[in-house]
Amino acid sequence: MGHCINHPDRETQYICMKHKIYLCEDCLRCKDPKIYCKFRSSCPIWFLSKSRGGLDNEANQESVVESHTIIFLPDGKEAIMPKGSTLLDAALVAGVHLNASCNGKGACGKCKLVKVAGVVETTPTPLLTNHELEKGYLLACQSRITGDATVEIPREVIERKLKIAGMGKEISEKVKGLVTEIDPMLVCIPLTLSPPTLEDSVSDLDRLNRGLKKTGCDIARLNVGIKVMRQLAEAVRQDDWNITVSIIQRKCANEILEVLPGSGQHPNLGLAIDIGTTTIVVYLVDMADGKVLAAAAGHNSQASCGDDVINRIICAEKDGVKKLSTMVLATINGLIGEALDSVGGQVENIRNVAISGNTTMAHLLLQIEPRYIRRDPYIPTVTDFPILKAGEIGIRANPAAAVFIMPGPASYVGGDIVSGVLYTGFHRQELMTLFIDIGTNGEIVLGNKDWLMTAACSAGPAFEGGGIRWGMRAEEGAIEKIEIDHQSLAPTIVTVGDAPARGICGSGIIDLIAELLKAGIVDRSGRFVTGLTSDRVRYDGDEPFYILVFADETPMDEDIVFTQSDLKNLLYSKGAVYAGFTTLLAEAGMDFSMIDRMIITGGFGQYLNIEKAITIGLLPDIDRAKFAYMGNSSIVGSYMALLSGHYRLEARDISSNMTYVDFSTNPKYMDEFTSALFLPHTNLQAFPSVV
Amino acid sequence: MGHCINHPDRETQYICMKHKIYLCEDCLRCKDPKIYCKFRSSCPIWFLSKSRGGLDNEANQESVVESHTIIFLPDGKEAIMPKGSTLLDAALVAGVHLNASCNGKGACGKCKLVKVAGVVETTPTPLLTNHELEKGYLLACQSRITGDATVEIPREVIERKLKIAGMGKEISEKVKGLVTEIDPMLVCIPLTLSPPTLEDSVSDLDRLNRGLKKTGCDIARLNVGIKVMRQLAEAVRQDDWNITVSIIQRKCANEILEVLPGSGQHPNLGLAIDIGTTTIVVYLVDMADGKVLAAAAGHNSQASCGDDVINRIICAEKDGVKKLSTMVLATINGLIGEALDSVGGQVENIRNVAISGNTTMAHLLLQIEPRYIRRDPYIPTVTDFPILKAGEIGIRANPAAAVFIMPGPASYVGGDIVSGVLYTGFHRQELMTLFIDIGTNGEIVLGNKDWLMTAACSAGPAFEGGGIRWGMRAEEGAIEKIEIDHQSLAPTIVTVGDAPARGICGSGIIDLIAELLKAGIVDRSGRFVTGLTSDRVRYDGDEPFYILVFADETPMDEDIVFTQSDLKNLLYSKGAVYAGFTTLLAEAGMDFSMIDRMIITGGFGQYLNIEKAITIGLLPDIDRAKFAYMGNSSIVGSYMALLSGHYRLEARDISSNMTYVDFSTNPKYMDEFTSALFLPHTNLQAFPSVV
Repeated sequence: MGHCINHPDRETQYICMKHKIYLCEDCLRCKDPKIYCKFRSSCPIWFLSKSRGGLDNEANQESVVESHTIIFLPDGKEAIMPKGSTLLDAALVAGVHLNASCNGKGACGKCKLVKVAGVVETTPTPLLTNHELEKGYLLACQSRITGDATVEIPREVIERKLKIAGMGKEISEKVKGLVTEIDPMLVCIPLTLSPPTLEDSVSDLDRLNRGLKKTGCDIARLNVGIKVMRQLAEAVRQDDWNITVSIIQRKCANEILEVLPGSGQHPNLGLAIDIGTTTIVVYLVDMADGKVLAAAAGHNSQASCGDDVINRIICAEKDGVKKLSTMVLATINGLIGEALDSVGGQVENIRNVAISGNTTMAHLLLQIEPRYIRRDPYIPTVTDFPILKAGEIGIRANPAAAVFIMPGPASYVGGDIVSGVLYTGFHRQELMTLFIDIGTNGEIVLGNKDWLMTAACSAGPAFEGGGIRWGMRAEEGAIEKIEIDHQSLAPTIVTVGDAPARGICGSGIIDLIAELLKAGIVDRSGRFVTGLTSDRVRYDGDEPFYILVFADETPMDEDIVFTQSDLKNLLYSKGAVYAGFTTLLAEAGMDFSMIDRMIITGGFGQYLNIEKAITIGLLPDIDRAKFAYMGNSSIVGSYMALLSGHYRLEARDISSNMTYVDFSTNPKYMDEFTSALFLPHTNLQAFPSVV
Repeated sequence: MGHCINHPDRETQYICMKHKIYLCEDCLRCKDPKIYCKFRSSCPIWFLSKSRGGLDNEANQESVVESHTIIFLPDGKEAIMPKGSTLLDAALVAGVHLNASCNGKGACGKCKLVKVAGVVETTPTPLLTNHELEKGYLLACQSRITGDATVEIPREVIERKLKIAGMGKEISEKVKGLVTEIDPMLVCIPLTLSPPTLEDSVSDLDRLNRGLKKTGCDIARLNVGIKVMRQLAEAVRQDDWNITVSIIQRKCANEILEVLPGSGQHPNLGLAIDIGTTTIVVYLVDMADGKVLAAAAGHNSQASCGDDVINRIICAEKDGVKKLSTMVLATINGLIGEALDSVGGQVENIRNVAISGNTTMAHLLLQIEPRYIRRDPYIPTVTDFPILKAGEIGIRANPAAAVFIMPGPASYVGGDIVSGVLYTGFHRQELMTLFIDIGTNGEIVLGNKDWLMTAACSAGPAFEGGGIRWGMRAEEGAIEKIEIDHQSLAPTIVTVGDAPARGICGSGIIDLIAELLKAGIVDRSGRFVTGLTSDRVRYDGDEPFYILVFADETPMDEDIVFTQSDLKNLLYSKGAVYAGFTTLLAEAGMDFSMIDRMIITGGFGQYLNIEKAITIGLLPDIDRAKFAYMGNSSIVGSYMALLSGHYRLEARDISSNMTYVDFSTNPKYMDEFTSALFLPHTNLQAFPSVV
């Protein structure tokens, strides 16, 4: 038994094994961040049961609680842990960051360690391969401490961390100069207030406001909540009137979110997040200088509810929107964790978040009813979002962190497109621009600084690898470039990271179709030519397919193939996109000749062969110099909005200035679509250089 | 077993006995107001245990659940209840309002009923007297239904209700014309939106904003929270785009609080509350026309922690501020309940609340740290409060109701004084005014439309009946007027409501001292004259006392007396007030001759004898025509702020324009105080007309 550190008058049996301090039951339940963070965030709390005899001093504590030392390599960090704790507990105590997205349930298999010395009691898990078990791998959350032990973080985990952190550096180079003046939504202002006297006896809150006014803060527009008022008297006095004030800046009014003792600088992190229907990307940003510290990407786990937004909405209608929100948050929060881990960042230091995503993704994330998006007349519930708090959404950040959601003009042209336009900046320029984002859907924007028109075409997820048997994202091992020898019909391939081929990404698929056409393996109508004699072209029943990589050259021991059905899906996708171009131009009374610049963004990966995209009729046959491929533009726009209030306003302007054209009931669009289902097109005159 | 009304695919054993509908376990736990209010607010939910056999249709339900009819007189309302429910449950179902401030715990003893016929199983309670038990009284929450029964609401409960409702009419007369333009903080705007089409496909939120803009609402300053966005799509569609929007108007930004289907008018109630250290007053107001529907007053239950603000703060430091908040909320919410009951009002229709109280009362109510109020240099945490929501404070109203707290300039001059000034209106006039509020403390304001000075003196609670053996509030049975015959020394008394005397209120105490002095029973130094032979003047040990009413004339069968100690306390109180006047005037370089008007407010009750107050030296000896007694001014100012945005702004101006003078270290104040401890004063020249 000992006295609670926070309530010295109370005796308690609970002891924190990290700090060796006692905490009463109230403190264990307490959510007060001051107590919670200081003594519990990474603490195993140990219960000293009465039957084992009370403890009165530090000396005989050790004799009763059997403890063991766990060493974590390669850094050599240590934790002294009571017997029976898990290695995941020990990692927390030692300050070693392990990725544990399932929160220690043994379900994600990510908290891998390798046992180097000592004994550990492990629960069998199907998440480790025999190969890994032989090498001494274990899951930290499934391993209980029974004696001293030394464990090591596997090299591949460290490599992945380094890569995630390294990607940040690369991206920082790329986004350099985009934001010149950093102006976060949530600012932390250090203040030193003059202590009160009988002559200067204004209230604490008035004193705080006076101090804020001196820093240039518009206190007439400043709100304060009851929680801040309740903690204010202690906060200002704890470090002798030195404080740090967190203020969230909103459209119409600012709010004091928190007043903390001490006026020292805290690390200030931000997140730029792009929620794609298929892929989610997270940038971890240093808000002080705009540096991207780390970047992580992963599959949207909503994919189990369907590939496209319509299926996601149907799923939300059936199972409730909360389920879809939980799914996307799992992916987002996992990626945030990876990014933080890779640079040793702390969740509570994330105070600003910017998110771009299409309208459905935004609704699902925020648990806003999406069902009317898919019903005529296709009405979203919200398109222009107020600044929210991370805690009310469920994003892994300081609960008070300010969250900006990119506005979007319509149900099928959302914040991801606005974000892309913001990045490419053509809404500020004279040049007439045709912008296309080819992600799971195809969204087109036409215009310049004077006007913007936009429309959406159901391109489907083929270019992101969806609906294609061996389709995949542009990750390591994805085939991104292909040439086919016209004699042997054998391909020469290039993969992402030069790794063994695991599948085909968007740019590889475009290459492949162009090459299949040029090599005479498929014809202009998109059908495999019959009667070819090659070990590359085979049949599965009636369905012909092309073998891109033989099984013995793949890590999966399976052929990587491209089938007639894959090709058909691709034709629909490319036809939908091209018909979108021509229909939108016609709506504006224009044609391709009037376009000064064509910007392509989307999930193709780093590389897109414009020439081959024209060959298959995905892109129009215009001057190649007019094309610019800009990769994932949505995440960059999100990064800009994260850092700059100017860009946040500009995003609102872009969204509200766009005129949306609905293709769903447009007869011209259906005609154009049908004509575009050929390679490159039924109208060859539109593709003179291909002919 | 049946199918859940909200989830037809689920079988459930729970049935709502009011609506005879089934609800699944999720629905029972659910806090969704749509489900909750519609099917659960006043429903006993009944569990159909499997062992008793499942139920498949309505017909044989009745045979399994034994139900009984309870009739409530005098209205004859009925409820059919399952055996074992309480009469309190039955009252809820029947729509009969019973006061049950302890929420059915059997602790408050307020839910009294009289059994007229039938049988009821009652748990014995000490809260009913033998006399009541003989008459068939029972507590509704402690009585279980075992058969059909008829019960009656006791006549005195109905009378009290009528009185509370009647007080509202009286007060309405009094406040008539004070507020000409009603402008609540939280407004409910009925809207009919144009349904969306393919041509007009803006989001639901944009459509709502567009509709609001047409009503003149400044949508640029309008915030909206995630909860509203989540419910918006359903809310707008449920009644075919007819909605009612609740908007809270704050200093710097407005917020959409709720969007409900249907554009019909809901009753719109408001509360004006005055939280005195001793007494709390509540007005229930119809926000449509400003009519006071009912008024209730009661003792602040914090009194158990001490009579004055200093003791309350000490108690908060010891036991936590939450305890004091809970106490004051218990009183406030009890009074709100009484006021609502008396006119059959609904809690959820209360959407606006204005509260005035001294600085300590405001801190304790809001659970804001009060400890620095009583420590040099006497700093309150907050003096100017943002508009809060009833739910975050704990006030019994719609949780979203807007709560305005009167601002106050200093630790010892709070919102109650600002509220009083607002009502009396001298801050708008030329006349030089001296304002005194004699409540548990004495606060003085000096000035006119050009400037305002204020100070506080520790008058103590004597004039509200505190610290006086037979002191009491100006309630029924309080002696409020006294004359003493100079020969017999026998008094002639007048009581409030002409009821048998139960104690002495503030105005009675002033009368009494003046009369004791004039009759020669006490001398100018405030001591009882020795050697008097009268059955009215006696001794308790060394201490002389005067018998005001003999035991046989009181309902308590005890003498109502006034002792030497009582007199001493009174002298201190009146000395503190008079010294306050002279010190504050001196600070302003003025004297009483420069005062055009003297306003007295406070807890004396309806009546204050100015002449006698001058006789004892509480008030200065100036032209009687300059005096105005205005009763409880704080509650009226609160009423004005409840209804008018103009007055809410004016209250802020009054508070920020007041110059606070601290008497705690003022040597002149101590001198003046000592001189004022005589009757009427050491300096008789200051009281020529008394001499």
